[in-house]
Amino acid sequence: MFNSFGNIFRLSSFGESHGKGIGGVIDGFPSGIKIDLDFVQKELDRRRPGQSKITTDRDESDKVEFLSGIFQGKSTGSPIGFIVWNKNQQSKDYENIKNIFRPSHADYTYQLKYGIRDYRGGGRSSARETISRVVAGALAKMALHQIGINITAYTSQVGHIRLDEDYSKYDFSKIEDTPARCPDLEKGKEMVDYIAQIKEEGDTIGGVVTCVIKGCPIGLGQPVFGKLHAALGNAMMSINAAKAFEYGDGFKGLKQKGSEQNDVFYNHDGVIETKTNHSGGVQGGISNGEDIYFRVAFKPVATILMEQHTVNINGVDTTMKAKGRHDPCVLPRAVPIVEAMAAMTILDYYLIDKTTQL
Amino acid sequence: MFNSFGNIFRLSSFGESHGKGIGGVIDGFPSGIKIDLDFVQKELDRRRPGQSKITTDRDESDKVEFLSGIFQGKSTGSPIGFIVWNKNQQSKDYENIKNIFRPSHADYTYQLKYGIRDYRGGGRSSARETISRVVAGALAKMALHQIGINITAYTSQVGHIRLDEDYSKYDFSKIEDTPARCPDLEKGKEMVDYIAQIKEEGDTIGGVVTCVIKGCPIGLGQPVFGKLHAALGNAMMSINAAKAFEYGDGFKGLKQKGSEQNDVFYNHDGVIETKTNHSGGVQGGISNGEDIYFRVAFKPVATILMEQHTVNINGVDTTMKAKGRHDPCVLPRAVPIVEAMAAMTILDYYLIDKTTQL
Amino acid sequence: MFNSFGNIFRLSSFGESHGKGIGGVIDGFPSGIKIDLDFVQKELDRRRPGQSKITTDRDESDKVEFLSGIFQGKSTGSPIGFIVWNKNQQSKDYENIKNIFRPSHADYTYQLKYGIRDYRGGGRSSARETISRVVAGALAKMALHQIGINITAYTSQVGHIRLDEDYSKYDFSKIEDTPARCPDLEKGKEMVDYIAQIKEEGDTIGGVVTCVIKGCPIGLGQPVFGKLHAALGNAMMSINAAKAFEYGDGFKGLKQKGSEQNDVFYNHDGVIETKTNHSGGVQGGISNGEDIYFRVAFKPVATILMEQHTVNINGVDTTMKAKGRHDPCVLPRAVPIVEAMAAMTILDYYLIDKTTQL
Amino acid sequence: MFNSFGNIFRLSSFGESHGKGIGGVIDGFPSGIKIDLDFVQKELDRRRPGQSKITTDRDESDKVEFLSGIFQGKSTGSPIGFIVWNKNQQSKDYENIKNIFRPSHADYTYQLKYGIRDYRGGGRSSARETISRVVAGALAKMALHQIGINITAYTSQVGHIRLDEDYSKYDFSKIEDTPARCPDLEKGKEMVDYIAQIKEEGDTIGGVVTCVIKGCPIGLGQPVFGKLHAALGNAMMSINAAKAFEYGDGFKGLKQKGSEQNDVFYNHDGVIETKTNHSGGVQGGISNGEDIYFRVAFKPVATILMEQHTVNINGVDTTMKAKGRHDPCVLPRAVPIVEAMAAMTILDYYLIDKTTQL
Repeated sequence: MFNSFGNIFRLSSFGESHGKGIGGVIDGFPSGIKIDLDFVQKELDRRRPGQSKITTDRDESDKVEFLSGIFQGKSTGSPIGFIVWNKNQQSKDYENIKNIFRPSHADYTYQLKYGIRDYRGGGRSSARETISRVVAGALAKMALHQIGINITAYTSQVGHIRLDEDYSKYDFSKIEDTPARCPDLEKGKEMVDYIAQIKEEGDTIGGVVTCVIKGCPIGLGQPVFGKLHAALGNAMMSINAAKAFEYGDGFKGLKQKGSEQNDVFYNHDGVIETKTNHSGGVQGGISNGEDIYFRVAFKPVATILMEQHTVNINGVDTTMKAKGRHDPCVLPRAVPIVEAMAAMTILDYYLIDKTTQL
Repeated sequence: MFNSFGNIFRLSSFGESHGKGIGGVIDGFPSGIKIDLDFVQKELDRRRPGQSKITTDRDESDKVEFLSGIFQGKSTGSPIGFIVWNKNQQSKDYENIKNIFRPSHADYTYQLKYGIRDYRGGGRSSARETISRVVAGALAKMALHQIGINITAYTSQVGHIRLDEDYSKYDFSKIEDTPARCPDLEKGKEMVDYIAQIKEEGDTIGGVVTCVIKGCPIGLGQPVFGKLHAALGNAMMSINAAKAFEYGDGFKGLKQKGSEQNDVFYNHDGVIETKTNHSGGVQGGISNGEDIYFRVAFKPVATILMEQHTVNINGVDTTMKAKGRHDPCVLPRAVPIVEAMAAMTILDYYLIDKTTQL
Repeated sequence: MFNSFGNIFRLSSFGESHGKGIGGVIDGFPSGIKIDLDFVQKELDRRRPGQSKITTDRDESDKVEFLSGIFQGKSTGSPIGFIVWNKNQQSKDYENIKNIFRPSHADYTYQLKYGIRDYRGGGRSSARETISRVVAGALAKMALHQIGINITAYTSQVGHIRLDEDYSKYDFSKIEDTPARCPDLEKGKEMVDYIAQIKEEGDTIGGVVTCVIKGCPIGLGQPVFGKLHAALGNAMMSINAAKAFEYGDGFKGLKQKGSEQNDVFYNHDGVIETKTNHSGGVQGGISNGEDIYFRVAFKPVATILMEQHTVNINGVDTTMKAKGRHDPCVLPRAVPIVEAMAAMTILDYYLIDKTTQL
Repeated sequence: MFNSFGNIFRLSSFGESHGKGIGGVIDGFPSGIKIDLDFVQKELDRRRPGQSKITTDRDESDKVEFLSGIFQGKSTGSPIGFIVWNKNQQSKDYENIKNIFRPSHADYTYQLKYGIRDYRGGGRSSARETISRVVAGALAKMALHQIGINITAYTSQVGHIRLDEDYSKYDFSKIEDTPARCPDLEKGKEMVDYIAQIKEEGDTIGGVVTCVIKGCPIGLGQPVFGKLHAALGNAMMSINAAKAFEYGDGFKGLKQKGSEQNDVFYNHDGVIETKTNHSGGVQGGISNGEDIYFRVAFKPVATILMEQHTVNINGVDTTMKAKGRHDPCVLPRAVPIVEAMAAMTILDYYLIDKTTQL
């Protein structure tokens, strides 16, 4: 049941890094939504490898093939099956890693849990699985767009380089202007240079994605175990390499007192608003109409082009060194994935909220 | 469906702050487990108000009454119903807050979502609901204890006062020696003094709980949307006032490179272990046999004993000032709740893992 | 997860025949519904033992105590906890059956599944558990009443005595006029006499409950694994002693051809209707606006007041003879339970259907 | 969430009759199971159209393509994606039915529920969707075979022609010897002739499939809302055209008393068994080790080659007459689908049962 995400809107995903392809079934997508195939492709392009010099050099142009649930350009309410076919799936020789547990990868845990593992490119544990999320997230974005909800993410930290200002200080229209996906173009350039240097070293580096949801109506979120921020946190922590989640002021707010952190209400020309938004748009687990914002930390990619100690499948100490083309930093490519997971969560909760009153 | 937590092991909770009581139904608890009622009560006592001078002065001695599912001292596999009766539930006059939205509370969002709200003491949104979690968590702990899994949490930060060392440097047997639930007794005293001062001011302060799970077998966790750390994150973010979650090195690890963050495997006297544990005991979403550890940030309590601006139910600007006895800091009382949520999550995933192979 | 029923509207039930009580948590009940406590009690009275000479002589007047989720007479959208306390729970000596597996009861299967069982009065497997369904069903009926949906069940067969006419031929206002809950008062009298005779013999007899749902809007039901009739069938088969379910013409329609069974559409004064209703109001798993009707078969109660062969817990052949007061026929008391399960199903699907379009 | 079936073992299906294909994602299939592709194909061949003169003449040789979750011939525990591509999907002109609601089909209810429908060949409501069930069911059968559980179904009634004996009287090895899938070859011939005659008339006829599960261990089934027979009933009622479900003696047992229906236990050479099996292998919702058997009624196919009255999408009365090749009777082809649904249910419950004790 755990290859599915969502309650009413639900993605069930399948596929391995070097199998036939990555795909899924999207259930509970509202009927009658116009499907913009170009938009889906554009979202996939934002995720794809080889899109810039700071991502992996593997040039995979991922094309989605929809298999059901769309008729005459609109969703029918029936499940939407889809697949992105893998290319060159047999092209590589995996003899060197099939019996070795790569450090900080899922090789060891999969082997012990399942007693068998698809060792080609990480198999199911590969971040290539996120293709299914980007496709489903693109559809969710389309639906949300119709009701005025917009979701934007950007890279706010790479290693030691970080944006110091609040999200409201940045011009989101510039995010795609730099391969770093950072709205501060100067910092973005620093990030790109730093990642390039890390890549040169054969090493990797982590960072932070900040995400902002604007236009979310009041009332989304389900007490007490379906709080909106808990759902978002769960969604984010399911992304490969995610290590931390905070919403609103998060860790930063800990040094402030209640009298400083409380968001007081006031009547703003007939609309109830809060003067500040330390809460991050969610109170008691329910959206309050203010911007929802949160941050997700990603660790450095585990695959480094250096020799590392490890053990083999027989438990014997050995060494290994990865070859090939790998991402030195997941950040720029993680941005559309964060948006996709947020979009699926919000659409799901929007639909659930419709059942609150008769 | 959102007042339930867990998949196979599942708590369905009910109750409001000033209703008849707080209770729940625990489904999927394994049969044949000896139920230690004293242990459950001891856990409730760790959560209860009035336990020390730095918690609220309300002295509620919460006693659990089990209603089903236990026979001759053992669990039968049937659902375990329980209730903790509220006392003095009609003792207070709520006229002054029934038409006012308290800042950074759930009054406003509940009112708009449901069109009605139980305004007595926060109703369903009150942290008193966590009683049900502590009861269910105590049962989960009992079951986990039988298979050698132990869960310990402690206060690692209050306001600006924080423990700087790794969890492994502290003596967990000292946690209950200070009302702050901090294993560093000196820092614990500082925290107690600081909280007392904050209380004096009528203000509140937040902090961090660190939690460590020892003895967790390899293999718990479900790819790809049921990763163990995502489940833990979701559990933690469902606790009242939680604002952030990080596992392993979390945000701290962002400045390090992959070559520094990777946990290399080695054969330790016949057992495969990792030399370091930046991963926090979870790789690819699955436990790897190392200690699992994570941190949860809690914001300052929203109820402060100061005048605040707000609006009333008609949207008119007004002011309010809370009266009565409130917690200046949730931290010490959040510790057993964090443990309870972790215990439920781990037991649930332990049971789920049994279905992996035929 | 299996002591819960429903998706959005969900009952989680607990309790054993001779434990402290029977209760549950109702989640997802719409907010703002006026709760008529007298109606709930009236439904419980229709289910209770001792209500007439053809039910068990045990006189249990079951009173429900609501524990949460209702404020100032209305539902708040928070979970509704409730309990019906058992009386005289320790009054009986179970020494004679604790080590014996009663034929066609759940003693044997519970013992082998769980390794332990509450042998007092059947424990969890007792039909006393249906109290929780009747309470939750009564709330569901209230909500459905507001949207014009009404559910009526009646006894249509007891042993060889059966009603031969279609449901539309009977006057439902007469159902409660006979202890048999049969709208044909003459047949009802026959049933009562027959059950009295069976009781005299110390034996038991089964029968059929027919249920009709009027006013159900078009569109309820979820393809393909949540067909409305499949959900109803599942609900009915979960009732103790249920052996069969059929909707529309069911088994009866097998001898007719498609040309005879098809329900042709026509325009009836501006409304699309079907000329016949062999489909039972459901087509392709979705309600079509016509009456929904179905039949549920119940086997004779397993407890008979005669000596029977069986084995004990050590597998040794032995004999046993039940004592005390038992129902000779579940039918009259099953009627409100069938209605309750139908009401919960329809309300759940009504809420789910709200999520179909944006 | 309703295009998914099962809890731990879960099929999420997609696809329409005349879309690109029918497929699905199988989650929770145990790892390490050897996958026999020929067996899967053989099961699909038992379902496919055009297999005999009494099925539709459409000759669709459905080939399954597995997309993930299988590595080196074995299941990996990762989700198994698959698709059966449709052929000639654009070959037909649907102008004549796109604006008409075919009687007793799902055209009308889909249109009103979703506001849009794929009218080509019934779209999602077509029984072609059952392809996904047969594929997933074939995998489930493989896993069950390893633990000694075998599932067999056969046609026991077509129109007025029915088998009068208990399932134990028939030789299951003969089921596939007649296109009717009836183990009584003489009756099977009668059925074939009758169906041929019905086909000649342009009409359709229904019937009954009986299913027997042998070797099911004691203990499968979850009280109280997950009773094994309720799960089987739900599974069967989800099949297109299913109208009724009964297990054990079902409706037939209603005329017998408890003293005749009870299954007494005895010690059979050291094994506890029941002398009779009116219960159908399930007591209190849990398997008791005896054979599980049940019957499913299917209505006549709604598509008849005769003129019928109906209304069009504007509600105007009109007539229509179906053209093309259609099944005169679903029975022979429903047999493998019943088996598939039973296999998925039993495997799911087998896995769930592993979580009962620690």
